[in-house]
Amino acid sequence: MVKFVDVNNMARWIQRDGVENIITGMVGYLERDYKRWELFHKIPRVASHTPFGVIELMPTSDGEEYSFKYVNGHPSNPARGFQTVTAFGLLADVDNGYPTFESEMTLLTALRTAATSAMVAKHLARKDSKTMAMIGAGSQSEFQALGFRGVLGIEDIAIYDIDDEAVEKFRRNLEPLGFNIVVCKSVDEAVLGADIITTCTADKAQNQILADKHVAPGVHLNAVGGDCPGKTELEASILDKSKVFVEFPEQTRIEGEIQQMADDFPVVEFWKVLTGEETGRDSDDQITLFDDVGFAINDFSALRYLRDAVAGSDLETDIDIVANPDDPKDLFSLVANVPSLI
Amino acid sequence: MVKFVDVNNMARWIQRDGVENIITGMVGYLERDYKRWELFHKIPRVASHTPFGVIELMPTSDGEEYSFKYVNGHPSNPARGFQTVTAFGLLADVDNGYPTFESEMTLLTALRTAATSAMVAKHLARKDSKTMAMIGAGSQSEFQALGFRGVLGIEDIAIYDIDDEAVEKFRRNLEPLGFNIVVCKSVDEAVLGADIITTCTADKAQNQILADKHVAPGVHLNAVGGDCPGKTELEASILDKSKVFVEFPEQTRIEGEIQQMADDFPVVEFWKVLTGEETGRDSDDQITLFDDVGFAINDFSALRYLRDAVAGSDLETDIDIVANPDDPKDLFSLVANVPSLI
Repeated sequence: MVKFVDVNNMARWIQRDGVENIITGMVGYLERDYKRWELFHKIPRVASHTPFGVIELMPTSDGEEYSFKYVNGHPSNPARGFQTVTAFGLLADVDNGYPTFESEMTLLTALRTAATSAMVAKHLARKDSKTMAMIGAGSQSEFQALGFRGVLGIEDIAIYDIDDEAVEKFRRNLEPLGFNIVVCKSVDEAVLGADIITTCTADKAQNQILADKHVAPGVHLNAVGGDCPGKTELEASILDKSKVFVEFPEQTRIEGEIQQMADDFPVVEFWKVLTGEETGRDSDDQITLFDDVGFAINDFSALRYLRDAVAGSDLETDIDIVANPDDPKDLFSLVANVPSLI
Repeated sequence: MVKFVDVNNMARWIQRDGVENIITGMVGYLERDYKRWELFHKIPRVASHTPFGVIELMPTSDGEEYSFKYVNGHPSNPARGFQTVTAFGLLADVDNGYPTFESEMTLLTALRTAATSAMVAKHLARKDSKTMAMIGAGSQSEFQALGFRGVLGIEDIAIYDIDDEAVEKFRRNLEPLGFNIVVCKSVDEAVLGADIITTCTADKAQNQILADKHVAPGVHLNAVGGDCPGKTELEASILDKSKVFVEFPEQTRIEGEIQQMADDFPVVEFWKVLTGEETGRDSDDQITLFDDVGFAINDFSALRYLRDAVAGSDLETDIDIVANPDDPKDLFSLVANVPSLI
């Protein structure tokens, strides 16, 4: 039997352990996996594009365990009552190829994306960072805020979105949790004096959510929403004046903000900051920019963290997706000789 | 909710409808999809190789529905009590990216592989074909035999495998169903006078399960087991004297028997035989060879056939893998405000 966490049990787990605790714990798993980055089998995710969205498969393996995630991205979904992003995925045993663990990953992706952002900011943002501007108040926004509070202690957030109702939802969800939320009427207002800027919007277009003028010296820029060919958020000149960090360059050059730049535009692979092969922030005035697109190893870490956290509890159930004949060469026995299954 | 067919319900379905009926029906779905081949989004499957096996993802889409299959191939598994191949997969709605149907696919892959073989043989084998030689008595073998009986009326089978117990299992499973089974002591004995030869072995090596001398004029050769880089079954000169048909050349040149040949070795895409753009068998003396590796569209057809066959019955259940907040931008509501889920 494969262990399984469905949406209801995922929600129960998050309520049991708490978003901030989970993200903080997940950062530990992420850092361990990023430090052994070279071990992993890595390819850009496999995308099936249509004019209105994308469906992607994100596989990776450390040679002992294999993971993949199915994830869609449909920016026009919310207007029709659907979410922009849904996901599910699994872990498998590389030795025999059998799946071992399956889970919903819409909520888990929200957690792991926030955990990845927080992990990177922990190493790249100025140590005295106290405020974050957030551009985009969609499904990912609360998880980003809680991740930055859990890992960096950020409690002061200036929020802007073109959708007033989404901003109000963000404020309503987070103020009761102790955040100081400033609702802003423009990007200019939101970024004023911010130590960290997070962009996380969903439009599949070459946008300039953030212009050059919005990014002051010393800022850490957590650019989450540019994650698809033809989908960017930043004015290109921001990239020129920043030190740019990425997950897996072969994927980020296709999908990230740097798709706007030349193929040899210099980037730092973030895992090398963790191993000490590269420096992170070099000065208080430097602009550090995480061009986040979301990589398969992030999901590998998140799935393993979840699996370990729920092991043996009633948050996991069994799912019967691997046929298991007594004689492995006699698959036919399952349909020929099973006594009165019907 | 996503509709779900687990292993037990898959077995119940196969017992309810019967292997031969299912394969015959599935051939109809396959033929319809192969005739609209050009509509599909097609890529070679995405493989993660280790020395002892492979895990693969096989996505495709016709622009309205998306499917993918997770499948492993571990030739050393049976000796350890595991199956060589296990699989599961799903269908999704391209319009919003949401999964709609998930299923076990170990049994379904056995059915669809046999259905694909039978579909191709129906169009390429000599119309007077009466006997089949089978090399390999593993998990796929009974499904191949039933597929060829259901679609081509083949009842006389000569079987050979290096594993005597597997051969005995094959005989034990199929003789009660009315087949005439001749157990052979060698490949030479098995192929003698055969109209159709099916090779389906699992070793991940460049083997010569079948030598040039084994393939007489007029035979249809259904080569199923060569389906991975470094895994072939046929002496290369057999390819030179045959008219070779493939599913998706970009994948078959990597994985199929033709990996032994030059990059421009001539092949016919089988779908073009169905649309009339290419001829199939040109004479009774010609050797036709289906270099089968298994392509994603086969799984697309199989999943849709299954989905349609079990719709509304107790063979499908609901599986909760897509989070569904009332406000699509308020994913956080699922973990913040659900009253006492714990």
